Amino acid sequence: MSDKKYMSLALDLVKGTLGQTSPNPAVGAVVVKNGRIVGMGAHLKAGDAHAEVHALNMAGSEAEGATIYVTLEPCSHYGKTPPCAELIIQKKLARVVIATTDPNPFVSGQGIKKLEDAGLEVKVGVLQEESDHYNRAFFHFIKTKTPFVTMKMAVSLDGKMATNTGESKWITSEASRHDSHRLRHSHDAILIGAGTVVADDPALTTRLETPGKHPIRVVLDHHLRTPNEAKLINDKAAETWIVTTGEQRGSEKAKRFDALGVKVLYLDSHRIDISDVLKLLGEYGIVTLLVEGGPTIQDSFLRSKNIQQIVAYIAPLIIGGEKALSAFGGLGMNSLADALALDIDKVAEIGKDIKIIAHARSDEDVHGNH
Amino acid sequence: MSDKKYMSLALDLVKGTLGQTSPNPAVGAVVVKNGRIVGMGAHLKAGDAHAEVHALNMAGSEAEGATIYVTLEPCSHYGKTPPCAELIIQKKLARVVIATTDPNPFVSGQGIKKLEDAGLEVKVGVLQEESDHYNRAFFHFIKTKTPFVTMKMAVSLDGKMATNTGESKWITSEASRHDSHRLRHSHDAILIGAGTVVADDPALTTRLETPGKHPIRVVLDHHLRTPNEAKLINDKAAETWIVTTGEQRGSEKAKRFDALGVKVLYLDSHRIDISDVLKLLGEYGIVTLLVEGGPTIQDSFLRSKNIQQIVAYIAPLIIGGEKALSAFGGLGMNSLADALALDIDKVAEIGKDIKIIAHARSDEDVHGNH
Repeated sequence: MSDKKYMSLALDLVKGTLGQTSPNPAVGAVVVKNGRIVGMGAHLKAGDAHAEVHALNMAGSEAEGATIYVTLEPCSHYGKTPPCAELIIQKKLARVVIATTDPNPFVSGQGIKKLEDAGLEVKVGVLQEESDHYNRAFFHFIKTKTPFVTMKMAVSLDGKMATNTGESKWITSEASRHDSHRLRHSHDAILIGAGTVVADDPALTTRLETPGKHPIRVVLDHHLRTPNEAKLINDKAAETWIVTTGEQRGSEKAKRFDALGVKVLYLDSHRIDISDVLKLLGEYGIVTLLVEGGPTIQDSFLRSKNIQQIVAYIAPLIIGGEKALSAFGGLGMNSLADALALDIDKVAEIGKDIKIIAHARSDEDVHGNH
Repeated sequence: MSDKKYMSLALDLVKGTLGQTSPNPAVGAVVVKNGRIVGMGAHLKAGDAHAEVHALNMAGSEAEGATIYVTLEPCSHYGKTPPCAELIIQKKLARVVIATTDPNPFVSGQGIKKLEDAGLEVKVGVLQEESDHYNRAFFHFIKTKTPFVTMKMAVSLDGKMATNTGESKWITSEASRHDSHRLRHSHDAILIGAGTVVADDPALTTRLETPGKHPIRVVLDHHLRTPNEAKLINDKAAETWIVTTGEQRGSEKAKRFDALGVKVLYLDSHRIDISDVLKLLGEYGIVTLLVEGGPTIQDSFLRSKNIQQIVAYIAPLIIGGEKALSAFGGLGMNSLADALALDIDKVAEIGKDIKIIAHARSDEDVHGNH
């Protein structure tokens, strides 16, 4: 029982830092000696010290003979920081309890081996499921080299995002809209289509009472029709990337964006294929992508089977209307067998609304064969 | 505190008998003497004894000097049974605790007055909100003389009831479909449009492992196009009523239904107006109406502002498709201000799905000025 208790505390440290460590996973560590916690630490930011380093610093000389609980297998290779497995050996800990192994198949198990070879007692798999769940975006990225895609929906109980006359402000409550800014804060990038830029001119920034992180704004723009005057081109509040097709390379329109300091990414092909877009964003280090596109963009992600998670805000409202926009437009899936099957992770009341978080069933095996 | 405790038990008796007492309200009663329960009772079926009678029978001679907890004001008038207020006086109870007063403005307060005039101590309003909530359909009927309308939706997370090719079996899980039969069981009548009869030929019966009550099946049928061969015309499993316009009176088609033993109800006007339909059903004693119509029927109820409650089964599935049917079709509401605003009463996971029960905000003041 006490192994679980200390690991649970380490996971609390993970929960608190989710979204601020990208492209690294969030990791927590707790050092325990004679039933007393002598060190705690979390990885706070890519490039900074790992969780184990913080926890062992706090423990100081108490580390000797202690047990360290760490939510992810300690690294064994020299990256931006020296390997944590070596530090644990140096500091003479007696025992290492690990929630889950490294998802990278090239290094997975090496940290454990190093610790065992040095004579430490190692226990693996304590609260593994919880740990995997927290870092499933990171694991998805490591395995697929593409971002973990979360799709946001804000709809009425009958699935509409506007009335048949186009009125959409506001369907969901202030509480939901505030929560959706926290959702932005926890993502590396946020994606919309050029059509939405032209129609709504959104800022796509994170607006919270305490300053939030602004994700990179990614616009899918086949014909480079994002106007110079768009907020996300001009406000300098966050980086903006335009993703377009190869045929725009060197075009006058592309030069215009270069001059405005906006990064333009080119696909190889002459059409916008969502899988290609995700590969490109993966190459640029985007681990978590929030899609807030209009119905057509949502449909492209649906049909290309590139949705890992849905966050739905559902307002207690019936709008009706055959022609009122649903969250997903376009062609959709022809058969129920092809529809995106989800498992629900969380249902919560938020203000007057309901928030549902669900993940794609196909994405459940985040941790491969470990 | 103990008043609440005993009333809460009386409300548990109400909960158990909801849906089986129509057109009467569900009522529970508990008799307590010296801190010991000496009698319990519930109204079980219209025409049978009231809750107080059962509870006082059980109490026998212990009733003298006792307190009776009753979820609805005891009646003071001679109906199918003698007035309960008089019985309570006769049995020499000392104290009467009432959750809520009678919603009928013509008799409300008269039971209380009778009890007080006889020298009993009367306390009103203990757990009133809960009691009002359980009997809000009955209260609605008493106040409006029209049925309390519950609309059922069974949709995907993106609000679709079929794919764009029309595939709809099954979007929700078996657990949800089973629950929706329990929903039928608790209603006096169930309404669909003739279009759905022609397209799907549903039986609309209550299929549960223990026999359930079959609601009366009501078909809205402007042109009397329900075929002779339809299950709900032939199966004799439950009563079927056809509601049509005045111009069908005496028509060959109407005679056909008469011959088949199907009741035909005629509206005065030459069109199907939902408010008129509800008035007619109210005259025929329908207190609770479950609407399971297709998108067009749902839209008629929405636009005529005749929905009191929504029960939504939401499957964790994204179907997509601009042309895939939403639960509500037709014209819908043009502005968000006109959309049907609901308050959520309950959110529950049911199988893999989510069930949401919500009531119309406009229907909140079920108890008028009491």
